Amino acid sequence: MEEVTLGIIGGGTVGSGVWHHLHRNRALLESRVGLKIGLRKIAVKALEEPRPYPIPAVLMTTDWSSVVHDPQVQVVIELVGGTTLAKTMILTALQLGKPVITANKALLSAHGEELFAAARRHGANLYYEASVAGGIPIIKVLREGLVGNRITHLYGILNGTCNYILSRMKREHSEFAPALAEAQRMGYAEADPAMDVDGYDCLHKTGILASLAHGFWVKPVGVCVEGIRAITRTDIEFTEKLGYTIKLLGVVKVVSGAPGSGRGQGGGQAIQVSVYPALVPNTHVLASVNDVFNAVFVRGDVVGDTLFYGRGAGKDATASAVLSDIADAALDLKHSSKNRVPAFVPHEHGGGILPMAQVISRYYLRLSVADRPGTLAKIAAILAQCKIGIASVIQPEGHEGGIIPLILMTHAAPNAAMKKAMQQIVRSPVVKAPPMMLRVESFD
Amino acid sequence: MEEVTLGIIGGGTVGSGVWHHLHRNRALLESRVGLKIGLRKIAVKALEEPRPYPIPAVLMTTDWSSVVHDPQVQVVIELVGGTTLAKTMILTALQLGKPVITANKALLSAHGEELFAAARRHGANLYYEASVAGGIPIIKVLREGLVGNRITHLYGILNGTCNYILSRMKREHSEFAPALAEAQRMGYAEADPAMDVDGYDCLHKTGILASLAHGFWVKPVGVCVEGIRAITRTDIEFTEKLGYTIKLLGVVKVVSGAPGSGRGQGGGQAIQVSVYPALVPNTHVLASVNDVFNAVFVRGDVVGDTLFYGRGAGKDATASAVLSDIADAALDLKHSSKNRVPAFVPHEHGGGILPMAQVISRYYLRLSVADRPGTLAKIAAILAQCKIGIASVIQPEGHEGGIIPLILMTHAAPNAAMKKAMQQIVRSPVVKAPPMMLRVESFD
Repeated sequence: MEEVTLGIIGGGTVGSGVWHHLHRNRALLESRVGLKIGLRKIAVKALEEPRPYPIPAVLMTTDWSSVVHDPQVQVVIELVGGTTLAKTMILTALQLGKPVITANKALLSAHGEELFAAARRHGANLYYEASVAGGIPIIKVLREGLVGNRITHLYGILNGTCNYILSRMKREHSEFAPALAEAQRMGYAEADPAMDVDGYDCLHKTGILASLAHGFWVKPVGVCVEGIRAITRTDIEFTEKLGYTIKLLGVVKVVSGAPGSGRGQGGGQAIQVSVYPALVPNTHVLASVNDVFNAVFVRGDVVGDTLFYGRGAGKDATASAVLSDIADAALDLKHSSKNRVPAFVPHEHGGGILPMAQVISRYYLRLSVADRPGTLAKIAAILAQCKIGIASVIQPEGHEGGIIPLILMTHAAPNAAMKKAMQQIVRSPVVKAPPMMLRVESFD
Repeated sequence: MEEVTLGIIGGGTVGSGVWHHLHRNRALLESRVGLKIGLRKIAVKALEEPRPYPIPAVLMTTDWSSVVHDPQVQVVIELVGGTTLAKTMILTALQLGKPVITANKALLSAHGEELFAAARRHGANLYYEASVAGGIPIIKVLREGLVGNRITHLYGILNGTCNYILSRMKREHSEFAPALAEAQRMGYAEADPAMDVDGYDCLHKTGILASLAHGFWVKPVGVCVEGIRAITRTDIEFTEKLGYTIKLLGVVKVVSGAPGSGRGQGGGQAIQVSVYPALVPNTHVLASVNDVFNAVFVRGDVVGDTLFYGRGAGKDATASAVLSDIADAALDLKHSSKNRVPAFVPHEHGGGILPMAQVISRYYLRLSVADRPGTLAKIAAILAQCKIGIASVIQPEGHEGGIIPLILMTHAAPNAAMKKAMQQIVRSPVVKAPPMMLRVESFD
């Protein structure tokens, strides 16, 4: 049996997870792919550091360059994260013609085009199944399993931290801060949770999925990103009464009949790409995806509706995706087809991102207003002036003169119109606190 | 751009669906795989017959052999179904060294080993993504996406007809017969529905998934198969009250600590492979998979719990899977790696199927009993004698001397014990109609 030899850079949570599962399931993996899988070295930050799974001392080195340059290392696996040194590591390996496996969504999001160009130039390949949705093989599904489909809609619950916080807020009717604290205690959120709760991690992943689905590289700059910090227990409770669950979604939609252009910046098909918390109807399968689980709902023009569900992060789920890339990289080496499925294949030329101002949604608005005659009339007048129709109103009984929540569900309206309305609503003297605006997804 | 040329056998529902979507999305598919995809011929039963999508007359022939033998046809796609002529067609193509794509689960189930051996012998390959779960790329997920995982549990809702009937019975509190009639009217069930409602179609698919997961070919003979004909509205209503939904499941489970052997027939690991309607807790994601949708719940030892959901049948979803196989076959031809992922790779040597008698389940029993003193005592005594614990009982209030339903939920017990108990229960004079026994899945 031929052998393919790996080198790993990164011995932290993910790196030690890959080592552990590769070691444990190596015989199974080898018999399935028909190749011996050797592991030559693991570059770590420090030989002595706490790891979820121990790595044998004989495998460790603190010199990543020696792993990449080792002539016996045929495939380099980058699991250090970050966007500076990791980039150097990957480019160095690609320049040596070595295929690279990475789980680094932040790096791909920021420098994907440069990395893909380097892979192409040096005839290597870059595998990144682990970069999106952890153990769910969504990259393979989009590039191979659904290759015959035009992807018209993709909605992803792609950040386990946010999904855990929102699930907990709903289950326990708690506010954001204690739910975040609990997520931190459980190890699901970082000490600085900004990357997760402000939506940037979801943005990185959404951009990668949008790019694969539509064949032009979606740059994160300019994509609308809204996080979940502003969501309150009141929002959770009212949306629940209305039959919805709030989820942070990565949204990738082909927009037909958009007003004005209907076409994207490039003159081709216009794609909505955005990240925001949205109201998901409780009858929709995504509403049932709870805690740290991820799910990607994909509608293809041939296959119809599909859903892919699993753990989106963590040492084990991520290792499962890396093992899948190891199998592909090993088979591609064995068959001298290093670019069988290239890192990125441009297609659907001329597509572009629909400007957010033109994105059309239904909205949930929660305002804190003075409970006195004429309040609703004032708000309704602002919305009417911006041509936004009101679908329903909830105004719980209060005491006159007090401050009460006013919940409005609107009909579909362009983002620009809602933005204009919100600017006026904020300035209105009847509005007593910053208003909350969330989009409602109907999955039509 | 190189070209790969296809020949299709079968111009019915699936065949014309593949033609239609290939024609419509050909440019997209070609730009994604970097190859021209040509279609040379489609062999049909009759040139004039009703088809969901028309096929151009110039492409049609009634001579399948001319398609297979056409030197320009590089990949043969078999979409005629059945297990006799289809087998000859596939073997003829493989003998010519041509890769074959098929959606034929019945044929694979009956003659998989022979077909795989022929593929191996002639250096061709056999692709069968469309054979299980329609548009869900579950074959690719098991063989590639989860390749690093030992699959410990797999539960599939794999028959859209049964799932439609059971969903309808639950939604409308109807009996089996009218729900079946409605499925037939909608085109979801055949005039002779036996293959679907008696569980054989699910058996074919479950066998294929079990084989891929565990690396030894699971023959359908001897696998426990129970269909859904005997399920009544009463069962639907009582299970609903108990917090369950009845689903026809294909079950593939690694059984640890089975009594007696704990090892399969072959001396290796013991795998439960069975098809039966089971009570699924409403909190489990499979309980929400309704109508003609399919879903496969897979637990891997690395990835944890995953779910794959989509349309399991029909001309469009099946075409999506065939297009995916076309892309793989074309890439494998381009890279001269026809057996990159061989049709079937034996692994986990020595595994075997756990005899059904040793399979342990919890049970739901519905008995029609005489409402008179001592009835429950008699049933309880039979169960106690067979060492089956009773977890709960529902006996709705009746009038003394009448016939009432008696619902029992048991603790876990081996199938052999339950079979013995059922034989005695049937003979008991207090039992007035054939009893109903369903398994309860806890997904632990």
